Amino acid sequence: MKTEKTITGDVDPDVLAYTVGDDPVLDMALVRWDCLGTAAHVTMLSEMPVDPPVVTKEEAARVRAALASVVADETFVVREQDQDVHMAVETRLTEMLGDLGKKIHTGRSRNDQVAVDVRLHIKDQLLGLGAEVCDLASVLVAFGKAHDRVPMVGRTHLQPAMPSSVGVWATGHAEMILDQTANLEAAYKMNDACPLGSAAGYGVPLPLDRQRTSDLLGFARPLHNVFGASMGRGEDEAALLSALAQLMAVLSRLAEDMILFSMPEFGYFTLPRAYCTGSSIMPQKYNPDVLELVRSKTAQVLGLATASLSMLHAMPGGYNRDLQDCKGLYMKGLAITRTTLRILAKFVQGMGVDEAKLRAGFIPGVFATDVALRKVAAGTPWREAYHQVRDNLEALAAEDPDAAVAAKSHAGATAGLDYDLYETRIAELTATVVVRKTAFEGTLEKLFN
Amino acid sequence: MKTEKTITGDVDPDVLAYTVGDDPVLDMALVRWDCLGTAAHVTMLSEMPVDPPVVTKEEAARVRAALASVVADETFVVREQDQDVHMAVETRLTEMLGDLGKKIHTGRSRNDQVAVDVRLHIKDQLLGLGAEVCDLASVLVAFGKAHDRVPMVGRTHLQPAMPSSVGVWATGHAEMILDQTANLEAAYKMNDACPLGSAAGYGVPLPLDRQRTSDLLGFARPLHNVFGASMGRGEDEAALLSALAQLMAVLSRLAEDMILFSMPEFGYFTLPRAYCTGSSIMPQKYNPDVLELVRSKTAQVLGLATASLSMLHAMPGGYNRDLQDCKGLYMKGLAITRTTLRILAKFVQGMGVDEAKLRAGFIPGVFATDVALRKVAAGTPWREAYHQVRDNLEALAAEDPDAAVAAKSHAGATAGLDYDLYETRIAELTATVVVRKTAFEGTLEKLFN
Amino acid sequence: MKTEKTITGDVDPDVLAYTVGDDPVLDMALVRWDCLGTAAHVTMLSEMPVDPPVVTKEEAARVRAALASVVADETFVVREQDQDVHMAVETRLTEMLGDLGKKIHTGRSRNDQVAVDVRLHIKDQLLGLGAEVCDLASVLVAFGKAHDRVPMVGRTHLQPAMPSSVGVWATGHAEMILDQTANLEAAYKMNDACPLGSAAGYGVPLPLDRQRTSDLLGFARPLHNVFGASMGRGEDEAALLSALAQLMAVLSRLAEDMILFSMPEFGYFTLPRAYCTGSSIMPQKYNPDVLELVRSKTAQVLGLATASLSMLHAMPGGYNRDLQDCKGLYMKGLAITRTTLRILAKFVQGMGVDEAKLRAGFIPGVFATDVALRKVAAGTPWREAYHQVRDNLEALAAEDPDAAVAAKSHAGATAGLDYDLYETRIAELTATVVVRKTAFEGTLEKLFN
Amino acid sequence: MKTEKTITGDVDPDVLAYTVGDDPVLDMALVRWDCLGTAAHVTMLSEMPVDPPVVTKEEAARVRAALASVVADETFVVREQDQDVHMAVETRLTEMLGDLGKKIHTGRSRNDQVAVDVRLHIKDQLLGLGAEVCDLASVLVAFGKAHDRVPMVGRTHLQPAMPSSVGVWATGHAEMILDQTANLEAAYKMNDACPLGSAAGYGVPLPLDRQRTSDLLGFARPLHNVFGASMGRGEDEAALLSALAQLMAVLSRLAEDMILFSMPEFGYFTLPRAYCTGSSIMPQKYNPDVLELVRSKTAQVLGLATASLSMLHAMPGGYNRDLQDCKGLYMKGLAITRTTLRILAKFVQGMGVDEAKLRAGFIPGVFATDVALRKVAAGTPWREAYHQVRDNLEALAAEDPDAAVAAKSHAGATAGLDYDLYETRIAELTATVVVRKTAFEGTLEKLFN
Repeated sequence: MKTEKTITGDVDPDVLAYTVGDDPVLDMALVRWDCLGTAAHVTMLSEMPVDPPVVTKEEAARVRAALASVVADETFVVREQDQDVHMAVETRLTEMLGDLGKKIHTGRSRNDQVAVDVRLHIKDQLLGLGAEVCDLASVLVAFGKAHDRVPMVGRTHLQPAMPSSVGVWATGHAEMILDQTANLEAAYKMNDACPLGSAAGYGVPLPLDRQRTSDLLGFARPLHNVFGASMGRGEDEAALLSALAQLMAVLSRLAEDMILFSMPEFGYFTLPRAYCTGSSIMPQKYNPDVLELVRSKTAQVLGLATASLSMLHAMPGGYNRDLQDCKGLYMKGLAITRTTLRILAKFVQGMGVDEAKLRAGFIPGVFATDVALRKVAAGTPWREAYHQVRDNLEALAAEDPDAAVAAKSHAGATAGLDYDLYETRIAELTATVVVRKTAFEGTLEKLFN
Repeated sequence: MKTEKTITGDVDPDVLAYTVGDDPVLDMALVRWDCLGTAAHVTMLSEMPVDPPVVTKEEAARVRAALASVVADETFVVREQDQDVHMAVETRLTEMLGDLGKKIHTGRSRNDQVAVDVRLHIKDQLLGLGAEVCDLASVLVAFGKAHDRVPMVGRTHLQPAMPSSVGVWATGHAEMILDQTANLEAAYKMNDACPLGSAAGYGVPLPLDRQRTSDLLGFARPLHNVFGASMGRGEDEAALLSALAQLMAVLSRLAEDMILFSMPEFGYFTLPRAYCTGSSIMPQKYNPDVLELVRSKTAQVLGLATASLSMLHAMPGGYNRDLQDCKGLYMKGLAITRTTLRILAKFVQGMGVDEAKLRAGFIPGVFATDVALRKVAAGTPWREAYHQVRDNLEALAAEDPDAAVAAKSHAGATAGLDYDLYETRIAELTATVVVRKTAFEGTLEKLFN
Repeated sequence: MKTEKTITGDVDPDVLAYTVGDDPVLDMALVRWDCLGTAAHVTMLSEMPVDPPVVTKEEAARVRAALASVVADETFVVREQDQDVHMAVETRLTEMLGDLGKKIHTGRSRNDQVAVDVRLHIKDQLLGLGAEVCDLASVLVAFGKAHDRVPMVGRTHLQPAMPSSVGVWATGHAEMILDQTANLEAAYKMNDACPLGSAAGYGVPLPLDRQRTSDLLGFARPLHNVFGASMGRGEDEAALLSALAQLMAVLSRLAEDMILFSMPEFGYFTLPRAYCTGSSIMPQKYNPDVLELVRSKTAQVLGLATASLSMLHAMPGGYNRDLQDCKGLYMKGLAITRTTLRILAKFVQGMGVDEAKLRAGFIPGVFATDVALRKVAAGTPWREAYHQVRDNLEALAAEDPDAAVAAKSHAGATAGLDYDLYETRIAELTATVVVRKTAFEGTLEKLFN
Repeated sequence: MKTEKTITGDVDPDVLAYTVGDDPVLDMALVRWDCLGTAAHVTMLSEMPVDPPVVTKEEAARVRAALASVVADETFVVREQDQDVHMAVETRLTEMLGDLGKKIHTGRSRNDQVAVDVRLHIKDQLLGLGAEVCDLASVLVAFGKAHDRVPMVGRTHLQPAMPSSVGVWATGHAEMILDQTANLEAAYKMNDACPLGSAAGYGVPLPLDRQRTSDLLGFARPLHNVFGASMGRGEDEAALLSALAQLMAVLSRLAEDMILFSMPEFGYFTLPRAYCTGSSIMPQKYNPDVLELVRSKTAQVLGLATASLSMLHAMPGGYNRDLQDCKGLYMKGLAITRTTLRILAKFVQGMGVDEAKLRAGFIPGVFATDVALRKVAAGTPWREAYHQVRDNLEALAAEDPDAAVAAKSHAGATAGLDYDLYETRIAELTATVVVRKTAFEGTLEKLFN
């Protein structure tokens, strides 16, 4: 079944660029996962009830040892002539083990081989990303806690609207980021299923034990239907990219706020100079390049998600070569999003708060609604309270931002933020990631033994 | 806080079209939900520990009764001059209750009011959509079961590749659809949180009990941070549309297969004439318009998801008017996707299977891999088996499609499909939907009492 | 050929909603164009060298008169039962003319009929939009001219960077908008070709004179290939939507600048109150809802363009029903963009300039580069000039914004704006639109005679 | 002004990856253009009427000679530590010319420097792409001509519908591709304007001659407004990517047709084996990988266009760092589209036609409409003709595909294709490309002298 991908005859360089493309580079990220997938497959083959066995247990052990050495070999590379990681690993195995190296493909196709590599890789990446989401949320919550009741003008339509606080601002963004874990979890669950044994999408006339390979690799379940398993490839990457695009959209709103409120006209936040570009001749300039790039990277990840879904649009069932192009898309989307999370965490950590400038932002009208509602709470009907305030706007100048911040005490408002709630939530998410990561690595470690 | 949206001065017709737009039409879908949200809010207000109470318990009861009558009134419409559902309901309440009708806005803004309406509406819609997903999957599984081992050529790159079956084809698509419930569940969970009490995004200086309104409306939790709650609006719709776009992409692949395999050159499936357009002069023509429209609707929902994410791109924190435009997007996406699910279920139900044509598709080469693997299972090394087949291709003509289908018995292959697994999974999903729906309706029913 | 679209048997309401959809509403925009297309077709039929003629010249004249009366009838509507404009017009013609009304479809299919309707409609719309683009550019240029050398801080990365002016700001946006006419012109040219006579995409065995109908309708040329003509449908709408999406992106940047610089922290521009929403209790609040909606509408038009291109992705050649869904997309995109142009023109016209606030924005560092370059112009090497400025930053406080504005005199800079260039360009574009519109209307007017 | 981009302090590796990214690789495509832009700038500087001159004519000549040597040096690379092409070239110039190497930045910023590089690069690329569009169209027209009246079933809704021909099929696709040149021309024109002299978007207080640099570099005109010039950056790339996305959509339809009609069930076309992947064990398999990748690359370019437009969405005026990310997007879009055009041309050239299979596709119903219309042409009213055919469907079996092809003689139909029209159009486009390319290269050649 390996032969399917072979380009026949002399290959045109344009065709080579088109079909092989960046695979030798991209596939470097898959080396470990390809070796693990093969280790599970060969183990299962050695246990398969056929006589004579396709590979013996002793042979399987030798293959696993060879695969372990490939993973451990830091000089191992996928070369241009290998075209992809599968061929590169197979070539190495054959060099080490002779014909035994070629037996590992029995009952498998490159289709399910690459599908399992991708799913293992995505799982590992999502666990890493999950930790980074927690880090950023954690930094934002700490920032909010440190400046909890520092008054900050709350805006609607970007116009000053009502009293708010740095605590509300920071934890609001943290909460939005944490809420995104629902999408990431969906992508994780969709991904946590094993396509191995589906071969080219139609299974094989061999008694493969698909549950066994799924278990060996730490998947929650096999993808049952073999045809479905082959179609699951693009669906999996699209789910990941959709979740990433949504997360990036949320991060871009945080970045935009930081860009705006660090402009000298506001000066609420001072950006960490190490993360800004400056101009020694224009001392006022600390350009938030990194934050601007969060915006453009958001657009890029949206483009990647759009591409992945457009790719699936009306694609006939079964394996189609289009699916190969999902690989570059998801890898790029992951790399961008993870770097963004890490950079933003450091950025927020280095951000300063200028309380004087924040307080200076409180123009009187900002207090209007609060004052009217205070009257309501004291028994004045809303309409009357409203008129009293409107007819007496100058009185608002006497209002105190700190008092206003202290006065809104219901859940989630300036004086009602529950930091424990955030910390608990982050701790639980972190624990889930750690437990999964530990289980995953533990399972995989056993594979090579 | 109602006054914020008021357009001052004489309104230019273009501005009116731009700002009000389709709201009077779209908002008809929100009437019930707006009344329920208000009922919860007024109940909470009547329990709020301020003296004198903003509204008394008796007043709250009158408001709830009036709201119940609005919901029950089938002639109730949002008129052009109302601009939106909130104004329409308030106007009616004021007609019925006088000044009491205006008290209901105390401690609330249109921002959290529309946010809660939208979330209740989406919840209800997602429950309906969940049932429709189960229906379509169920119909596909039944179709597969009814034609379980009918041979069907398995394709890769659309080329005939290996023996497969109608059972594998139908349940493969069913499985992909069922896997999409992970995304729908994420959208459901993200949506199942109550923004009420966040007012315009900065809370109010009143002791609102936000947990109480959340409970009254059957939400899993309140959105804690008030600023976050205001930003959650676009995020929520984007999660929904991303899930819908992914589901539609999967459905478009099913539609494409049905379009292809019902062409006279294949004739595998006969489409239900009631769902096709025909031509009395061209008797051969049964145009699969509905299936083609599944493709274009898929592109449309992708466009809606793209729009919703691009809208969020770099939007500053807090409420911005841009968010209003998410409403039309999500409603359109839901309507398209739900109709698509229902139509496809009926379509598959009416689809016939032409066994003779399916068998006729088995050109000899389709058996090549299976035959080689049979030899491997019998002890021939793969390379030798492969050469034997290649040197003897004419022998493949004697192979039998039914035998090939029977020979692949591992999990998920032609002779290894586990229908119980699908039926159980669908039954569980259906049960979840029913339980949620019942609980939701039960909670809401109590609200008006 | 009319019969192709007929839904056979009893139609399921979901199927009806899916296939007919908004057509009765959308098609109201096509009534005039459908009648004109039919008038041209029937005229050509009456001149076709077959014996006996398909329709006589006298019959053709009666059809044209009937069509003219339909266009003139303001009460004419496409009803639900008509399904679309073609059926509605045909039904009316048959009522008026009996069997003659049905002859008009000879040698035509709904495919080329709707394609010609759409292209006539788009042509008319693009001419209207062209005038609106000129209006907005004109208003911006006038705004720039009126406040030509009013100093305004030029920003990079949103940070104050260098001296600039209101003139540069306003005409910079105008120039970007004018540059978009290249895309609109491409869309116009692609659209200005006649599909009539391609029938269902394969022509007919009748001696149709396709050049003649193209000329009668004022198209620049017929689409030659009949199969290509049927594929041109989606391509045409995609070109239009791509041009609109790009134009909207440019407009959203203008809107964003106006939102930012009218915030009280800047106060550079005062927005026209008639186009803002306010709050009587918060007198400081003039919410730029309309400008925010420009941002969200930009995202929407991007979504529509994405949908139209995703729709075309891998669509098989020839007419496919998917193409019908382009109609709603392009109509929505046009309506949004045209309203946006009109509103922005009025908005800019009503915008005030606060010179004091604009000048107050000049923090000293803004002059740094200019001062260093002045030294360079006077003979100091750049590196030395740069060091002199850097070591003497306090000297920058003495710099004068107006002098800085006056000092940059090269083409396109603060003191080098060429307003004639803009005015000439706008005048030429306006003239092109007028000439085309006049020729188009003139040609069409003759059709009914 | 060079100093603006400098990252201050120790740079975090994530930040470096984020901000510098692929620039060292991508910028290799800009080396020649950067040197040319600098050559034009330094020439203009040497002519600038300031005393003393910023650079003398003799110095300018030395700079140009040095730049010419950089362009000629095939070993020249942009290294990681250079960060980008501008720094790499400047460093080399300074090695060669000492302090003179640094003078070249007077009156320029990296903003207008990179903008001019990009526009020169795009111009060169669009000329290359223009030639490739002509090549592909030419190959399709030749293919159509070679098999002009070979009957081929015309399809609507993918169902066999009416008689058509290979000539119509091939030239229909060619015509759609040629029509796309309107969009490419718009992108070319928008790009053909010179941003040089706009500096960081606000010009400089030096008497730059912007018309002169524009002329030296062969641009049609300078971008007048300096602020507009800085905003034109993203707009330019978006226009290019929108045009490419539309072209790819059209190409994907051609690819889809070739995939479908080369399936064994049709067998109309035989694909060139050198461009297919095969399987020696499955002799029937010639997988059209390249064509499938055309589909996925179409989705990718759509994603790139979406990203570029989403990036512009609501971006504030003036230079923002987001714009840097357009570079990777447009370069990728161009590379994909150009390779696709070249591969498809070779693919079509190698494609065979199986006349027997094409004729076998003519099921009787395909002739129904033609036969009815023949009766109409002979005087039978349409309704009667239609009934005669419908009541006599078996008579259609006697119809001859070749006669049907010969019978449709109007313009653009099977017997009415005007190959001269295509050949003339392609020749004119080719001539335009050649003239522009020659003029462009001629102008640039003079620059270094």
